[in-house]
Amino acid sequence: MTMIIDCHGHYTTAPDAHDIWRRAQLSAAAAGRAPPPYPTISDDEIRNSIERNQLRLIEERGIDMTLFSPRASTMAPHLGDIRTSTEWAARCNELIARVCTLFPHRFAGVCMLPQAPGADLDAAISELDRCVNGLGFVGCNLNPDPGGGAFDHPPLTDRFWYPLYEKLCELDIPAMIHVSGSCNHAMHATGAYYIAADTIAFMQLLEGDLFSDFPALRLIIPHGGGAAPYHWGRYRGLADMLGKPSLSSHLMKNIFFDTCVYHQPGVDLLGEVVDTSNILFGSEMIGAVRGIDSQTGRYFDDTRHYVENSALTLEQKADIFENNARRVFPRLDEKLAALVAAPHSQGQARLNGSSALPS
Amino acid sequence: MTMIIDCHGHYTTAPDAHDIWRRAQLSAAAAGRAPPPYPTISDDEIRNSIERNQLRLIEERGIDMTLFSPRASTMAPHLGDIRTSTEWAARCNELIARVCTLFPHRFAGVCMLPQAPGADLDAAISELDRCVNGLGFVGCNLNPDPGGGAFDHPPLTDRFWYPLYEKLCELDIPAMIHVSGSCNHAMHATGAYYIAADTIAFMQLLEGDLFSDFPALRLIIPHGGGAAPYHWGRYRGLADMLGKPSLSSHLMKNIFFDTCVYHQPGVDLLGEVVDTSNILFGSEMIGAVRGIDSQTGRYFDDTRHYVENSALTLEQKADIFENNARRVFPRLDEKLAALVAAPHSQGQARLNGSSALPS
Repeated sequence: MTMIIDCHGHYTTAPDAHDIWRRAQLSAAAAGRAPPPYPTISDDEIRNSIERNQLRLIEERGIDMTLFSPRASTMAPHLGDIRTSTEWAARCNELIARVCTLFPHRFAGVCMLPQAPGADLDAAISELDRCVNGLGFVGCNLNPDPGGGAFDHPPLTDRFWYPLYEKLCELDIPAMIHVSGSCNHAMHATGAYYIAADTIAFMQLLEGDLFSDFPALRLIIPHGGGAAPYHWGRYRGLADMLGKPSLSSHLMKNIFFDTCVYHQPGVDLLGEVVDTSNILFGSEMIGAVRGIDSQTGRYFDDTRHYVENSALTLEQKADIFENNARRVFPRLDEKLAALVAAPHSQGQARLNGSSALPS
Repeated sequence: MTMIIDCHGHYTTAPDAHDIWRRAQLSAAAAGRAPPPYPTISDDEIRNSIERNQLRLIEERGIDMTLFSPRASTMAPHLGDIRTSTEWAARCNELIARVCTLFPHRFAGVCMLPQAPGADLDAAISELDRCVNGLGFVGCNLNPDPGGGAFDHPPLTDRFWYPLYEKLCELDIPAMIHVSGSCNHAMHATGAYYIAADTIAFMQLLEGDLFSDFPALRLIIPHGGGAAPYHWGRYRGLADMLGKPSLSSHLMKNIFFDTCVYHQPGVDLLGEVVDTSNILFGSEMIGAVRGIDSQTGRYFDDTRHYVENSALTLEQKADIFENNARRVFPRLDEKLAALVAAPHSQGQARLNGSSALPS
């Protein structure tokens, strides 16, 4: 039986006190004052925020495990400075850790990194280490454009990023390349900025030669890889024009796309043009698109349905739902093995794949 | 018999003297000097630049008519200022007019507009009028980000653009939304900037309500609509979340995508999710991707082949190849009617559709 591992979930329903503190923190920093104390948030508040939202939908959709990170749009490294970002990242990641402790069979942690325009990566590397070695996280989100929509950061192939890549390889952790909110009113966050940033990231990697320097580095480009699969011929052709090897050898040993594509033809195309070993199941639930598609009667972001309805084989679907995630996130694989060895009464059935594909 | 009208061709092979003059013009402007005189370019030089390149491939591929505009990547409104852009646009458009005069059965003119960061649209409106009423052009390219990659221009729904839209409606001319070269080294022009800008433009139009103010305005989003068709479910869902009408009534009476998508699955998806009345045949030949796809043995940008191999009906293909273009570009339709009425010996057969689909 196949497990369903969702590689892309954000804590979009965190208790209000958390976001209220963030606003107070930024106001205090702007006024040159120390931030107020972080509020006490009870386990019950966290449980409520999850049980009524993500967990309810997870149960309905039969998802086993979600890789859970702070809300993407409020990571907002363009607000404040590296000092405020560092404390905010710590608070956000600690909240994720609490969710994972309360629901260990349902959520594994993916951290945000403290970043800021112009800042170096020291704080990010330090927080990554703390989250992985201290809090048991299995992945991280890396923001390629901490300026929030100006695209003025060094490309992902620039040596600026190398210290972080070294740390990722040392920890054997993948990074999802994920921007945050847009501070450009002409660029809607989830409808324009996210998809543009995904596409730009892919082309940066195509133009460079990053994976010669980091053959073990694994990067996930979310939202179905932006525009890349739809324009796969363009990218194959550009690789050829730029004198690069084929995409499969140049990039696709190291790049993975999720399935956050909210209609059947899009997921079908993804599975057709991209080798299924490079596709990770993801929904971004509860995220950018929350409604029900009147054409199908299902939630737009119920992406399990699209994968199951695709023409892929059961083996390919099992790779997308489970096997690829275990390979790309080896610390998740270890965590799942430990959970099965010491089962939790409620989570046991799911961890053995009860919600899985017919086999 | 169906004609094949390519709505998206750029003069990427203009004689060197033209581009050498542009560099001299910019250098002179930077030094506070008047530009050197524009060089004499003979008809033979223009004929050669076309016959060996675009026309050769047009004949090979059986394309009847190409809507031809200046090279996109060198429109470069971020270089110089509105004064240099105005003269450059005039020179570029006049060269296009000469191509169209030399090959009237093969090329119809689409003008670039003089734009510059921060400049108003007076020069653009004036040049548009000159090109349409004076040079017989049938369309224009509108750059939504004349800064060359900062995305800091007002969104396409902003009233900033309204005077130009009024002129477009008065002239009954569509605009292709097309950025130029990128001045951001982290953003490759044809692999990242173009596709990101297309996607951002679509989302700007989705967020706004432009076509209530301009119900007759027609905008073409090139490169297959950027990421929009691949993420059609996301955009349908975002329209729903933003309280907008369905995409079909909110946008798709006014927005058209071309077929510049360089592989079969991409064109198949486009035809599956977007009503074929909104799709215009385009190749961008000779453009971004010039090589031959080793998987097919054909040029990546031989997009006619993908459309013909798709599962669409002959009627749908005829709409994509001919009927939609005649509807979106009514001045092209008039021009074609005039050419048939006064046939050119060599072009006659093609204008009657001899290179067309089996019917």
